[in-house]
Amino acid sequence: MSFQITLGPRERKSPFFERTVAEGVTHFTIYNHMFMPVFYGNPETEYLRLIDKVAMWDVAAQRQVEIRGPDAERLVRYLTPRDLKDCAIGKGKYVPLCDHQGRLVNDPVMLRLAEDWFWLSIADSDVLLWVRAIAAEGGFDVSVQEPDVSPLAIQGPKAEAVARNLLGDWVCKLKYFGFQETELDDIPLVVARSGWSKQGGFELYLRDGAKGTALWDRVKEAGVPFGIGPGAPNQIERIESGLLSYGVDTMPDSNPFEVGLGKWIALDRNDNFIGKQALLYMSKQGPKRWLVGVAFDGTPVHLNEHPWPVKVEGRLAGTVRAVCYSPRRGENIGLALLNTRHIAPGTELNIEGEAGAYRGEVVSLPLVPPGKPLLKVE
Amino acid sequence: MSFQITLGPRERKSPFFERTVAEGVTHFTIYNHMFMPVFYGNPETEYLRLIDKVAMWDVAAQRQVEIRGPDAERLVRYLTPRDLKDCAIGKGKYVPLCDHQGRLVNDPVMLRLAEDWFWLSIADSDVLLWVRAIAAEGGFDVSVQEPDVSPLAIQGPKAEAVARNLLGDWVCKLKYFGFQETELDDIPLVVARSGWSKQGGFELYLRDGAKGTALWDRVKEAGVPFGIGPGAPNQIERIESGLLSYGVDTMPDSNPFEVGLGKWIALDRNDNFIGKQALLYMSKQGPKRWLVGVAFDGTPVHLNEHPWPVKVEGRLAGTVRAVCYSPRRGENIGLALLNTRHIAPGTELNIEGEAGAYRGEVVSLPLVPPGKPLLKVE
Repeated sequence: MSFQITLGPRERKSPFFERTVAEGVTHFTIYNHMFMPVFYGNPETEYLRLIDKVAMWDVAAQRQVEIRGPDAERLVRYLTPRDLKDCAIGKGKYVPLCDHQGRLVNDPVMLRLAEDWFWLSIADSDVLLWVRAIAAEGGFDVSVQEPDVSPLAIQGPKAEAVARNLLGDWVCKLKYFGFQETELDDIPLVVARSGWSKQGGFELYLRDGAKGTALWDRVKEAGVPFGIGPGAPNQIERIESGLLSYGVDTMPDSNPFEVGLGKWIALDRNDNFIGKQALLYMSKQGPKRWLVGVAFDGTPVHLNEHPWPVKVEGRLAGTVRAVCYSPRRGENIGLALLNTRHIAPGTELNIEGEAGAYRGEVVSLPLVPPGKPLLKVE
Repeated sequence: MSFQITLGPRERKSPFFERTVAEGVTHFTIYNHMFMPVFYGNPETEYLRLIDKVAMWDVAAQRQVEIRGPDAERLVRYLTPRDLKDCAIGKGKYVPLCDHQGRLVNDPVMLRLAEDWFWLSIADSDVLLWVRAIAAEGGFDVSVQEPDVSPLAIQGPKAEAVARNLLGDWVCKLKYFGFQETELDDIPLVVARSGWSKQGGFELYLRDGAKGTALWDRVKEAGVPFGIGPGAPNQIERIESGLLSYGVDTMPDSNPFEVGLGKWIALDRNDNFIGKQALLYMSKQGPKRWLVGVAFDGTPVHLNEHPWPVKVEGRLAGTVRAVCYSPRRGENIGLALLNTRHIAPGTELNIEGEAGAYRGEVVSLPLVPPGKPLLKVE
């Protein structure tokens, strides 16, 4: 089945929209009320480009929620269960957000730009509304806005070479999740070593939406010697690497423990934060579901349209959230939220896909270790 | 330009998804994290069906935010600037929601199902997060959930005949925005006289997502004698009729006054509500922008991809939010947010469209009065 997307004024176009069209984008999704490219006509090429070379992604839909003001730090600490005691300027942090019942609201990367100035670089939910409600009802003295900031990601083993060519040697000194403000001629940027893959790379946070085309062209020019080409957040690579996809791997009532984020939940913090009591309770009870890797038989599958039911010994045990054929494992794989009774590696699974049934088993995460090369098929 | 939409597991399929595919849906959008049909291959037929006969729409993406508990009524009153003094069970109300700065957050229809039980039937923003934050931080004793409820709309002049055929004579007694719980054999429903058109009709709130196909088939069967066919919330009809589209006609900082919702803002309420101070201030200052009708020259336009800039005497005066060719006016029309200096009917406008420039003028709303028939072109 294939359907067209309506391009209408309810969603916003990215500053890179025109260039992605010129590059031949074929598929869009909508993410944070914005059109986001998904494919450019050849998923296999796009995957290989990410694994072997370098890809550039329009991830403008990864919007920023900006929190500024005297109470900004206090608010950010209240918003996340993570302990931010070493919360330095110029260093990003992965900060899961939970609601008062401990349910995941989003899983942003936080960037601290100044003492009283933070960005939350968000997944697909209206964190702007969430933070505004919390800030206003809690009496925090802050301004909460969505600034004109649109990330462009450069991902893949050659990403550092491209970034160096584009920006200079200094970018090589950025540590993982480190970032720095800069200008590329007259294009204002925040440059971070980050991105939603395990292949390494950078995110260029464009701070002037009128300069999207200019930035795209500069990145492409710098990347040509290294084989750069267009791509998008890649489902195959991220399933292989075990990167969490909020809204795919999570369910509306998911808590951070069941999707492997327990290490970021600091229940021993002395100060209060949203969801603390609920998370303490969950931690004592233990999770009822757990996100596991699965591998299954059959001819190579396409990305799934919706979660697939999983049975163990004839009874529903959970759902596979996302599947793909893994070129680096040479088999079909996926991430599944299963009842904790059925998460032992080797547990036999019956999976009901859109195009047929599969036999599979639970396998350890990550499904493919970072840096693993492609299988060489003779 | 035409692009495909990625069907993936991050968004949900409607309970009516399979039937909309069988009916030949061609275009989807994503609305409240759900796939929503937009076109079935012939926009002109779909418009005519709505104006002349009756259409059935999958509007499951119009999700419900359910508020239940001892403080439910107090919370709902706090959430909206509208005065709900006559807030009866079985009667829907249009309740704009604002944030603490008076910006529009959403514009739901509220349904009161019992003393302590409300639904907000929402436009496209995460009201669930908004209400959960307000409820928890404000200490309201309520449960806030998204129930398994998916509306199917029947709209058009023959909608009452279809609803009567489907449900019985009692539905004719429902007043505008009135609703009633019922069962259609074993399909649990809330039936309301409502819907996002001015052609009259009903919304069947399906209360069991497993029965979407069954409900679709029953509605279709009941509608065949009246010429029913598939459709979707119709941009042409709603622009003609002046129905607000949240996220299209509004901007991220829009307040209710500038988009014509002032009549619902009860600044004389004795009790407190979110945004009261900001809205009082705005009311005194007067709006800076205003949503107006526009008519413009040229060959018939398609729906716009993004807002179009408007100039008056060479200077930017605002944006046209949504345009269409109106079969009932026989010209191109639109809704525009303009600086209040330029909202007098007759003001000459220069409009920069995607495919060319247009000369137009401000015209009174509604652009087409409800019930106006099609122009007969000989």
